Amino acid sequence: MNFINDGNVTSPQGFLAAGVCAGLKRSGRPDLALIFSKSPATCAGAFTTNAFAAAPVKYCRTVLKASTTVQAVVINSGNANACTGKSGDDDTQTMADTVAGHLGLSPSDVLVFSTGLIGESLPMDKIVSGIAAAASTLAVSAGQDAARAIMTTDTKPKALAVSLEAGGATVTIGGIAKGAGMIAPDMQPCRPHATMLAFITTDAHVAPAFLDQCLESSLDQSFNRVTVDGDTSTNDSFVALANGTAGNDMIDEGHPDASQFRDAFHHVAAELAKMMVLDGEGATKFVEIEVTGAVSGTDAKLAARAVANSLLCKTAWFGADPNWGRILDAVGYSGATIDPDRVDLHYDEAHVVAGGEAGPASVDDQVCVVQKPAFKIRISLNIGEGSFTYWSCDLSYDYVKINADYHT
Amino acid sequence: MNFINDGNVTSPQGFLAAGVCAGLKRSGRPDLALIFSKSPATCAGAFTTNAFAAAPVKYCRTVLKASTTVQAVVINSGNANACTGKSGDDDTQTMADTVAGHLGLSPSDVLVFSTGLIGESLPMDKIVSGIAAAASTLAVSAGQDAARAIMTTDTKPKALAVSLEAGGATVTIGGIAKGAGMIAPDMQPCRPHATMLAFITTDAHVAPAFLDQCLESSLDQSFNRVTVDGDTSTNDSFVALANGTAGNDMIDEGHPDASQFRDAFHHVAAELAKMMVLDGEGATKFVEIEVTGAVSGTDAKLAARAVANSLLCKTAWFGADPNWGRILDAVGYSGATIDPDRVDLHYDEAHVVAGGEAGPASVDDQVCVVQKPAFKIRISLNIGEGSFTYWSCDLSYDYVKINADYHT
Repeated sequence: MNFINDGNVTSPQGFLAAGVCAGLKRSGRPDLALIFSKSPATCAGAFTTNAFAAAPVKYCRTVLKASTTVQAVVINSGNANACTGKSGDDDTQTMADTVAGHLGLSPSDVLVFSTGLIGESLPMDKIVSGIAAAASTLAVSAGQDAARAIMTTDTKPKALAVSLEAGGATVTIGGIAKGAGMIAPDMQPCRPHATMLAFITTDAHVAPAFLDQCLESSLDQSFNRVTVDGDTSTNDSFVALANGTAGNDMIDEGHPDASQFRDAFHHVAAELAKMMVLDGEGATKFVEIEVTGAVSGTDAKLAARAVANSLLCKTAWFGADPNWGRILDAVGYSGATIDPDRVDLHYDEAHVVAGGEAGPASVDDQVCVVQKPAFKIRISLNIGEGSFTYWSCDLSYDYVKINADYHT
Repeated sequence: MNFINDGNVTSPQGFLAAGVCAGLKRSGRPDLALIFSKSPATCAGAFTTNAFAAAPVKYCRTVLKASTTVQAVVINSGNANACTGKSGDDDTQTMADTVAGHLGLSPSDVLVFSTGLIGESLPMDKIVSGIAAAASTLAVSAGQDAARAIMTTDTKPKALAVSLEAGGATVTIGGIAKGAGMIAPDMQPCRPHATMLAFITTDAHVAPAFLDQCLESSLDQSFNRVTVDGDTSTNDSFVALANGTAGNDMIDEGHPDASQFRDAFHHVAAELAKMMVLDGEGATKFVEIEVTGAVSGTDAKLAARAVANSLLCKTAWFGADPNWGRILDAVGYSGATIDPDRVDLHYDEAHVVAGGEAGPASVDDQVCVVQKPAFKIRISLNIGEGSFTYWSCDLSYDYVKINADYHT
């Protein structure tokens, strides 16, 4: 697997992109992105489980149930088109129709995504002109422009690409994502859930069922293991497009290169997910929480998520306070089955808790770890084989500032 | 029902209290409280559901399973005696033994409570001398001293008392409580679950089963409906003591004055719970979240709790931002069954959301409400009869400051 410098969704062959200013954001920053595959691309997607799923989420689910290929993806930031009723549905359809018109496609070849403020109608005049501008500026060189145009409270664009040999050809997998707040994705595949948005493109020729599998199996190792604030959005979406332009033998589950391709796909998804947490609103620390030895994977996830979302843990991390009591407290109320006397806890290599009580690590050793910008908390429940890992961040003054002032 | 000025746990007849400085708190503030009933008191209790229940919680559960009466309650602040293993259990027993020795009681007549930092052993020399000092200063006049001695991050003591005519006599119900952080009680009766601590005393003569019922039925209307940070403590405890000194006819479930007594009991519990949220760490606003029309009470509680604990909602309240999208988002991921097109939302009287979309209330009207120090959010799901109310507060810079700096 090779890492491509400045890689993104246009690194794979046959993909073009654009990012333009449609005027939805008061800041005047780019707010409309287009990704276009020159040929029909096999598509897999996963969307939010939030009961107030936004109009574009409902639309994409419908498209992906009816078809396994699409050719274009349009995304606006600044407005989530969520809780907008029937007119919101109409606006989404108009976005698809407009893109289709400019690119000579059928509307059902177009996926639509929105992120930003909930509850306001899209300014469709601006959207329609923005789409025209994006369609006319589609280029291989504009992948980073697209990554920038989907940002909301993100402080930097999120993109990468890797290449590998598979099926007798060099295939490339690229991705872009956004998301810094309202981040606690809980997505379910839609042959087909986050407001995170992530888009992976590849020029590999892959079987539709295998692309579904790559996407589904990546979720718990990427987007569904990240949290910034515990708030699962109405708009979380993750889609992958594979256009086959690389000319490789088709990769399906039984292909000798399947696991290598899947690993590369997982890597791209995981790196995009990690970028979200690193850029979490106000975040100053990246904290990995690994729970092992739970009676089940579900229990391990419950325990890891409770710690990852605990305000007391997140503020302690901000303060570089090794306060392990807050971590055990969160494990204790998580709902996971535990035997309090068997729980072990490590901060990196420091053995903080042994058998439910203070362990051998000195407070100084603990402080050394929690002062680092990134560290790992390992919680061993020692009663089973279940495990799960979460990626979280601290809760800082800037988090409060961003969210007391910003209209999501 | 009459309200007693400066009322507290010694307002009912036959109760004495003390609050002293045992030296557990670095600040030098009072940190050990004692409540004593001159005669054996019927007792009911509810304790945390956290799997890391602290040593004193395990101890009290055992005592209350074996007996319906106790005569003394000892409470230390500054140290939670949680995650302290066998030595923590021994220390709790020593506290009970020491109190019993000074007051001529059996250890099983003594309940023990601790609140503060998790994971450190109690300094038993200080505790033992503190108990001696408290026992020697027990007085009717020291109820407020006890209320002060149980504080941790609380900025003020929490206490009240009411009286009523019941069973042919004037009976009084008093209470004290502490709790400003690690507040999301989820208590279950024992015979009888929050680190909140609450103590209600009454001189009424009540049947043990009826006292249990008063306490149990009060939970969802008081402590189990409050949240500051969503973190359910290892030490949450709520007990009620009734010593019968008022000389009234015994009140049981069938007594004509039962509902009046229960209402007064609920009032005291609810007021103590409300004081916790009003004094929540860094809180500048008190927000009542009422969910109605859910398919069940459980669903209503899920929806109300999700809003009450949402970081995005809590920071919006701090910023006086009427951002209703964050509220619907939280309802949407709460797990409660909803029909998005039927959801209504009011801020006090302002009709903010109608049928899942922006309602008639102007943004100005919405802002007027959310700028107030206390307001009510009414969420009508309109698909059933279930309802639940939560009391929450905003998330401010001071919350981060308190919890990045303070060792809970």
